[in-house]
Amino acid sequence: MAQKPSIPKGTRDFSPEEVAKRNHIFETIQTEFKRFGFQPIETPSFENSSTLMGKYGDEGDRLIFKILNSGDFLKKADKSAISEMDSTRLTSSISEKALRYDLTVPFARYVVQHQNEIEFPFKRYQIQPVWRADRPQKGRFREFYQCDADVVGSKSLWQEVEFVQLYDAVFSKLGLEGVTIKINNRKVLSGFAEVIGEQDKLIDFTVALDKLDKIGEEGVKKEMREKGISEEAINKIQPIFNLKGSFAEKIDGLKSILEGSESGQKGIEELQFIQGAIEAMPLKTARLDLDVTLARGLNYYTGAIFEVAAPEKVKMGSIGGGGRYDDLTGIFGLKDMSGIGISFGLDRIYLVIEELGLFPETVSQNTKVLFINFGEKEALYALKAINSLRANNITAELYPDSAKMGKQMKYADKRNIPYTVLAGEEEMNNQKFTLKHMKSGEQVSINLDELMEKLSS
Amino acid sequence: MAQKPSIPKGTRDFSPEEVAKRNHIFETIQTEFKRFGFQPIETPSFENSSTLMGKYGDEGDRLIFKILNSGDFLKKADKSAISEMDSTRLTSSISEKALRYDLTVPFARYVVQHQNEIEFPFKRYQIQPVWRADRPQKGRFREFYQCDADVVGSKSLWQEVEFVQLYDAVFSKLGLEGVTIKINNRKVLSGFAEVIGEQDKLIDFTVALDKLDKIGEEGVKKEMREKGISEEAINKIQPIFNLKGSFAEKIDGLKSILEGSESGQKGIEELQFIQGAIEAMPLKTARLDLDVTLARGLNYYTGAIFEVAAPEKVKMGSIGGGGRYDDLTGIFGLKDMSGIGISFGLDRIYLVIEELGLFPETVSQNTKVLFINFGEKEALYALKAINSLRANNITAELYPDSAKMGKQMKYADKRNIPYTVLAGEEEMNNQKFTLKHMKSGEQVSINLDELMEKLSS
Repeated sequence: MAQKPSIPKGTRDFSPEEVAKRNHIFETIQTEFKRFGFQPIETPSFENSSTLMGKYGDEGDRLIFKILNSGDFLKKADKSAISEMDSTRLTSSISEKALRYDLTVPFARYVVQHQNEIEFPFKRYQIQPVWRADRPQKGRFREFYQCDADVVGSKSLWQEVEFVQLYDAVFSKLGLEGVTIKINNRKVLSGFAEVIGEQDKLIDFTVALDKLDKIGEEGVKKEMREKGISEEAINKIQPIFNLKGSFAEKIDGLKSILEGSESGQKGIEELQFIQGAIEAMPLKTARLDLDVTLARGLNYYTGAIFEVAAPEKVKMGSIGGGGRYDDLTGIFGLKDMSGIGISFGLDRIYLVIEELGLFPETVSQNTKVLFINFGEKEALYALKAINSLRANNITAELYPDSAKMGKQMKYADKRNIPYTVLAGEEEMNNQKFTLKHMKSGEQVSINLDELMEKLSS
Repeated sequence: MAQKPSIPKGTRDFSPEEVAKRNHIFETIQTEFKRFGFQPIETPSFENSSTLMGKYGDEGDRLIFKILNSGDFLKKADKSAISEMDSTRLTSSISEKALRYDLTVPFARYVVQHQNEIEFPFKRYQIQPVWRADRPQKGRFREFYQCDADVVGSKSLWQEVEFVQLYDAVFSKLGLEGVTIKINNRKVLSGFAEVIGEQDKLIDFTVALDKLDKIGEEGVKKEMREKGISEEAINKIQPIFNLKGSFAEKIDGLKSILEGSESGQKGIEELQFIQGAIEAMPLKTARLDLDVTLARGLNYYTGAIFEVAAPEKVKMGSIGGGGRYDDLTGIFGLKDMSGIGISFGLDRIYLVIEELGLFPETVSQNTKVLFINFGEKEALYALKAINSLRANNITAELYPDSAKMGKQMKYADKRNIPYTVLAGEEEMNNQKFTLKHMKSGEQVSINLDELMEKLSS
């Protein structure tokens, strides 16, 4: 009967301390989202399969968790798929729903479905879990939270400026100083492909360029060659690798590289606008940097592309990203709805904050005082005091059983409860409480008001 | 290409206002949970099927959402189940994971799996969604949140007392005055069955008795007869229907009914202990009442049984429930771990609070001030001020485009943003801002400090 309990691979239980730390990050992000005027929405954990399938490429389709139809699902099953043992074809006839894969497609679906109730531009945030049947590995899970903020319904570049400020605000609040907000522009990337005459290989070109950090200049060139990009084109892009210096210096370099490309010039203009605004309103602790190799989900983005790198002393890579997309809602029939959004990578941010010791001590503090249980009358006396403390926002607990004192003290100790109260017959007769500071062992005999004051700080 | 977007039946999208209202309830519950010393845990959305199946009866097994195995799931499928078109048998070979059906079984699994890291008694709370393939109907959804608090590892009746106080604290904080916390005890129900000589029909007996509210005394008796409970036994229980008056009066009545039952007497003792403690520490706005017909999931509970009824003026039924269970973790191999827990019914609480108009106005308030966008220079001037406001906890937005003033004003209006700021060239030259109160139309010209002060209140 008894089973050895376990959870599916790639999923996690979160202990009280972990929940508290995660909530600290969620709440910080959420507070800034709100302060910037974003409003929360929530969508169902599962969507109709037709909403999700085909939106993330073949690989994405494979990684979407499908939910088996309830009841006698074989009744409606595709008989020929069964006889041919074709799992993929059978799936669509025995599964109509699937767990969401990200928050972006459900958001697009939401905007289109509720377009008549929404005031545009619509600034929404959404913090919910997503599921992917990816192979689990260090830092990659099958269930994880995404924290997204998006605006749809405006092409204004002030949005780009505000998202840079939002990243800065969140990471500064978390105490995570020195992050780099890398920015690029899809139009710059198109410009590159244009000036080297490889417009039809734009994706291969940028996918290779995006790997510069990991495989170096020679690696990038090798990959380009393998993808059939001409030697002449590769020679032409040499100046890209030589872009160095400040944001402004890189912009100067870009200008000459992209001289012949209208799209490229437009991209440069946009980058300059954003950089100019940020210069006029300096960031608190983050740094804005131009990274012309940054591509991310290129098919998707049409303007600005963002990625946030953790401070260099931590080896972590990207802890956030986003960009502008001009036709997200088009897949659901609503055209010309430009949007821009960013995302925070909760799990990596957690690891970075943990590694740098930036979680405030108070985060995982829970109960402030444990009342020792000496028996029925004493417990009632204690619980009355506990009620008063709780009414004053002080987290207080009664040990439920009149167990041996050592056991109760050990419990307080293990739970990291800083104070205990001992109140036996003598205290009850004098309307007093003996308050013990667990670390120092110091004890004082005080009345309820004094107890309240002492524990309020 | 374009699809008419929709969501699966029984699921919901939540708009910003709905999320804000739901969060108001969540946060109130959570604050009280914490104040009472409960600690949060979170468990994965899906569990191994073996963890969930067989824990909720046959009906429960059917209502659990199963997740299809990824990849070529037919490879490992039960061939004979396929050829016999047996969906139920096929399921276990093509699905290894399932969405959680409640928070109680995952909690039991958590306690057993992490028993060496936990300090007992373990007071945990958990607020997460659950999924049931129930037929959707008014107020019943396929995805909904549960809010549970449980203590495992102590049999102390002080826990029962504290849970009554916790219910009172939460509903008082929500402004929902006049709820009735009904209490019963499984031992009293066993006692009834004992004294009427129908111990082997305990469940049929209590299931019928539990319906007294709905089908009346004659209905209950009819059902008992149908279940084969003897006429003699039914005559003997007549005094149960006649129990009236205050808690203490009902207890007196119970004492004589259950005179011959040891278990019954034990149940009465427990009820008296709880009632006595609550009398010594009066509830704020709730009322504790003895309801000897209350059974809920009888197979599960072994001591106290709770149910909370909304104020009588609202027709809603139960908005919470719970009880003591002596062997929850036994199914996972950890014996002798008594627990007690309560649950809050979020969706119904929401409806009650909505119906009574108890959501604070501030709950769905979002942006405090919209800065009108008059062009690039003005927008930068505005955004600088907005940064200062945000740094002082004031939610401020810039309209992203320099659209027509009427359009921007309409946006503020539709979004219920109470103030707008107009700052054109004149204001910029004088370092001023024109603040407009949207409702009254009143306008003042003030500097940044004054703006900050005005909007802080």
